[in-house]
Amino acid sequence: MTKRREIAQLGEFGLIAELTKDLPLVNPSSVKGVGDDAAVIGLEGDRCLLLSTDLLMEGIHFDLVYFPLKHLGYKAVVVGISDILAMNGTPRQITVSIGVSAKQSVESLQELYDGVRAACVEYGVDLVGGDTSASVTGLAISVTAVGEVARKGIAYRGGARMNDLICITGDLGSAYLGLHLLEREKRALEGSDNPQPHFEGYNYLLERQLHPHARTDIIEAMREAALVPTSMIDLSDGLASDLLHICKSSSCGARIYLDRLPIARESYSLCEEMNIDPVVAALNGGDDHQLLFTVPLAAREAVMQLGAIDIVGHITPASTGVMLTTPDGSDIPITAPGHK
Amino acid sequence: MTKRREIAQLGEFGLIAELTKDLPLVNPSSVKGVGDDAAVIGLEGDRCLLLSTDLLMEGIHFDLVYFPLKHLGYKAVVVGISDILAMNGTPRQITVSIGVSAKQSVESLQELYDGVRAACVEYGVDLVGGDTSASVTGLAISVTAVGEVARKGIAYRGGARMNDLICITGDLGSAYLGLHLLEREKRALEGSDNPQPHFEGYNYLLERQLHPHARTDIIEAMREAALVPTSMIDLSDGLASDLLHICKSSSCGARIYLDRLPIARESYSLCEEMNIDPVVAALNGGDDHQLLFTVPLAAREAVMQLGAIDIVGHITPASTGVMLTTPDGSDIPITAPGHK
Repeated sequence: MTKRREIAQLGEFGLIAELTKDLPLVNPSSVKGVGDDAAVIGLEGDRCLLLSTDLLMEGIHFDLVYFPLKHLGYKAVVVGISDILAMNGTPRQITVSIGVSAKQSVESLQELYDGVRAACVEYGVDLVGGDTSASVTGLAISVTAVGEVARKGIAYRGGARMNDLICITGDLGSAYLGLHLLEREKRALEGSDNPQPHFEGYNYLLERQLHPHARTDIIEAMREAALVPTSMIDLSDGLASDLLHICKSSSCGARIYLDRLPIARESYSLCEEMNIDPVVAALNGGDDHQLLFTVPLAAREAVMQLGAIDIVGHITPASTGVMLTTPDGSDIPITAPGHK
Repeated sequence: MTKRREIAQLGEFGLIAELTKDLPLVNPSSVKGVGDDAAVIGLEGDRCLLLSTDLLMEGIHFDLVYFPLKHLGYKAVVVGISDILAMNGTPRQITVSIGVSAKQSVESLQELYDGVRAACVEYGVDLVGGDTSASVTGLAISVTAVGEVARKGIAYRGGARMNDLICITGDLGSAYLGLHLLEREKRALEGSDNPQPHFEGYNYLLERQLHPHARTDIIEAMREAALVPTSMIDLSDGLASDLLHICKSSSCGARIYLDRLPIARESYSLCEEMNIDPVVAALNGGDDHQLLFTVPLAAREAVMQLGAIDIVGHITPASTGVMLTTPDGSDIPITAPGHK
């Protein structure tokens, strides 16, 4: 009998690598397959199409006890769009498929789709298809996003070069802390006769978890400034994990500075209240859907003029590894779940 | 309190119509959105891209007790590709996302992907992406297929015209009967000390359920014959349901003849053994993944020369409805689950 290997032994990214290794691409239009935020399909001339797909499962990605369906629909679209943005593309079309358990009604699905529509309108994306299935268990949502990009404008994960600056479009860990807050209230209210959640002062964190925005504004600003990142990734799994992806794909190392990590005031407050290390939240908290990108040193001024971009470090040789430098000058190797 | 409407009240297709109504398409490249086998994205010149997505849920679409994972992976790709073929397109790329419960091991997922790869190689399709997620419950598989087609070569559901011939690429109901057979054996073997399934004589039916083929051959033959169907649909929900889609989209009626429905010899045998009406299996059995298409009367000879195509009836005015004519000349209105 064959030995059974548990998925946890490989980690999520090891599993994907294992399942998709030795995959030859036979169609000339398949420019880039597995291994980036989106696949790249070559069109005539210098245009390319981007294709990305995400699967959101109840009980893993969301808890319907506190996640309003309308927000969930909106967020599902944002998750898809963010992958297109992370390739420096313009999102154009989306499909949304749902596996629906018997506990959902027509009205609850309408709420979900109200959120999908709201996001489509906000980001100028067309909902062009999907599939509807029953589910014997929880709600499953599959989103496929399609975008457009000039071939020369594509920002792959693998393009970071020595000394490039590492840039982030917003504060880190707030979506993760918003989730912690919701989980805490859920536990507190279980069995309570008079549920009154205590969210005062933390609206920002809730907003970042329940109603994140896709950073189309930054992609447009970079395009206006004729700035093409050397590499880019959607911050969905946390800075540590996503920076490791950039470094692995670009065969480089990185150094980021602890005191430059953007962390919101509300995040510090909640971390103190809940006894969480804010740096751990910033490094490992997922779901931020900000963009992590690199630019050559010479683009520093141009990046500063985009506004509200944090430069948190720079690219180093692969041999020096991926390091977090603390204010006292010590280096801590960056690791992340899913990477083995 | 708002009245709760159950999804069953609307039916699957009513639900989709409800959720996706009033969806304006704002991007010029969105040629066709929701409502056909695939969305159509316009490219430069006369080329279009086709985009289709399917969600397969454990316990709804497959039972892992008798569905080997390798076959499941293969079939998931076939399901996706069939939607591209149904638009008269050439499948090029596919993404496969999986939601995986703890009962799966690395080895079982490798089996699934072995099937995915086998189908990709057979149909010349590139696996270019996907997503991997945990699942608290069963296995979920989401497939997105991308294809290519000339704008003038697209076969929409809505193009059937009066007197067009209704054509089918293979026998009906066999995949559904294969499923019945597997379910029967599952029940018979539950609690058995010495499980010995009784499948003799029914390999064809099992094959059609567990290892269906996508009809790329027919699409290629039609292209060589310069034959463009006026309308086409993938036979996934059963002839009755899919013919109703064609008629609704084309604002027409149809008449099909009971004695022309292609039913395999093995299907008749099993129907007799299991006391199932073979005509009901042919009309309502899903999962065949044959193609249903219409051509003008003048193309009759050309269709006959494609080989192994059954002409089962013709398109009529909308006012006469969608009818099944029995050998004694009586007309039975065709209805189907999901259509209200």
